[in-house]
Amino acid sequence: MCDLSETELLDRIFPLLPPGRATLLGPGDDAAVVAAPDGRFVVTTDVLVEDRHFRRRWSSGYDVGVRAAVQNLADVAAMGAVPTALVVSLVVPGTAELSWVTGLARGLAEACAPVGATVVGGDLSGGDSLVVAVTAHGDLEGRDPVTRSGARAGDVVAHAGVLGVSAAGLALLDAGAAAPGAGAPGAGGPTASFVAGYLRPGSPLAAGPAAASAGATAMLDVSDGLLRDAGRLARASGVVLDLRAAALGPDLAALAPAARALGAGADGGGDAWTGMERAWVLSGGEDHGLLATFPPDAPLPAGFRPIGTVRAPDGSPHDDVRVTVDGAAPSTGPGWDHFGG
Amino acid sequence: MCDLSETELLDRIFPLLPPGRATLLGPGDDAAVVAAPDGRFVVTTDVLVEDRHFRRRWSSGYDVGVRAAVQNLADVAAMGAVPTALVVSLVVPGTAELSWVTGLARGLAEACAPVGATVVGGDLSGGDSLVVAVTAHGDLEGRDPVTRSGARAGDVVAHAGVLGVSAAGLALLDAGAAAPGAGAPGAGGPTASFVAGYLRPGSPLAAGPAAASAGATAMLDVSDGLLRDAGRLARASGVVLDLRAAALGPDLAALAPAARALGAGADGGGDAWTGMERAWVLSGGEDHGLLATFPPDAPLPAGFRPIGTVRAPDGSPHDDVRVTVDGAAPSTGPGWDHFGG
Repeated sequence: MCDLSETELLDRIFPLLPPGRATLLGPGDDAAVVAAPDGRFVVTTDVLVEDRHFRRRWSSGYDVGVRAAVQNLADVAAMGAVPTALVVSLVVPGTAELSWVTGLARGLAEACAPVGATVVGGDLSGGDSLVVAVTAHGDLEGRDPVTRSGARAGDVVAHAGVLGVSAAGLALLDAGAAAPGAGAPGAGGPTASFVAGYLRPGSPLAAGPAAASAGATAMLDVSDGLLRDAGRLARASGVVLDLRAAALGPDLAALAPAARALGAGADGGGDAWTGMERAWVLSGGEDHGLLATFPPDAPLPAGFRPIGTVRAPDGSPHDDVRVTVDGAAPSTGPGWDHFGG
Repeated sequence: MCDLSETELLDRIFPLLPPGRATLLGPGDDAAVVAAPDGRFVVTTDVLVEDRHFRRRWSSGYDVGVRAAVQNLADVAAMGAVPTALVVSLVVPGTAELSWVTGLARGLAEACAPVGATVVGGDLSGGDSLVVAVTAHGDLEGRDPVTRSGARAGDVVAHAGVLGVSAAGLALLDAGAAAPGAGAPGAGGPTASFVAGYLRPGSPLAAGPAAASAGATAMLDVSDGLLRDAGRLARASGVVLDLRAAALGPDLAALAPAARALGAGADGGGDAWTGMERAWVLSGGEDHGLLATFPPDAPLPAGFRPIGTVRAPDGSPHDDVRVTVDGAAPSTGPGWDHFGG
């Protein structure tokens, strides 16, 4: 890749980025021009750093492209907006393969395509390690943005998407219980969906605008784990979220094959598995589902299922507990203290 | 800085970023909301990498903040748009000082304030070296975007801003002929303005929308040197730009103190100085002036001065020469070949 100039590299990348629904002027000039028919746009940025957020021996360029796009698109959707356009700043060491970079572009483009968005511009620099900084934009289509701060006592807490899948996939890779190839598109086997979910998370993007239309009072993207992100929404809204463990039963059950693959080589019995699955569901990050609150009489839009209720803080000395599971401050075992922020 | 969580760090940074004219929802949620009264927005992204684009021993966080903002704001202005909002992705090694990061935020905010823009969001990650990825947005206020491809034979070539100042400042620092402190705000001395121009370049941002209103047919931000960027505009438009050396005389003269400070310790006489100044003006980058073409009868807006004319390619074997100076393919000495791209 050292042999290519920036211009030559961009000439390989631009053809991989077809125009999107909102693209008025695409890559190649000083700036792109994007439609904002609503008279406003939402904008968010997230950065992925090699060996912090991904490892090159596990994640292909395509994988990182999908993940970088999805985590930004999920932030747009969590405001109730429809994604329109991305720009990407990329830092690439000279040792990286050209195919890694073109794979990244394909991953970005393919994650954007289903919602009609695309990459409209970017910048490229050399550097010591791979850094992918994505900025995503969306259109509110006339709706009010759904912030984190509007949840009210009596609201229903609902979630769209999966919980714990990405964490389970990472645990499988970390333990050597699955190879990255287990998550390759089209791969089968009991661990395939977890590894794929870690390498290339999905997000129920259409559920965001649907939630806004249905009257969601607050919403956020679950990127750092259910409890941690629920706590953020609760604090921003000045409320407490009471979650029901039974509502998360299907999520725990879905993770059983991953726990089994890990437990097979250890001494742990059924209880250890349960603990593992519980920690993934409550504290695993990077699933990029949407957590939202709805007025009690609002019908939940497709994709959302109720997992709890909103109440006012009770003024007790335990007022700092912003999220409960079955009425108690949740414990997920070691590591829980790290999720207080 | 290792001792601070991301949340604590953001709590120090957000107060440094006041709301801007177009800010509808600022930092702290999944995404920001920005006004786009025009129904479109322009967007551009640029990344700065430590030891590629800046050195921490020369540039303070404040300096890098100003530069990162200005190079993006200039891209917005070069489309004929008024800057509205920035988002910033920042990779920071644990060894960096908190003051470097808060300085960066101040630099970004102060560079944005004069045009009414501000930073509306960001992301923060650890990493091995400092990376600052800025995405900037602007409002076209109903005007057509001014691309690189609209220059026509007979147009006037005009430039707004300085030429060679940043390159001269870098050369002074590189040679040890000036210390970074020589460019500190308020510092005096013969080399102060050059070092300051390298560390914290200015850009005539208001000239961009003014050029669009005056009927500019093509425009770009001069970030990689006059000849190289003029060549890009010429190729995109399918024309040749004939520049006049005499029109660049004042730029050369303005660089004399920098050349003298460098020549004083060398054997070079007057001719060497001229060569140095000529190379800075023609090939020095990062001044972030605006190069535009105007119809021959259009009055040039404030800040622009004519430096040449546009003509059709002559169809000769030298058709690949897209920029001439006084009618000849320009030579700037060693290094010129690197600017063909």
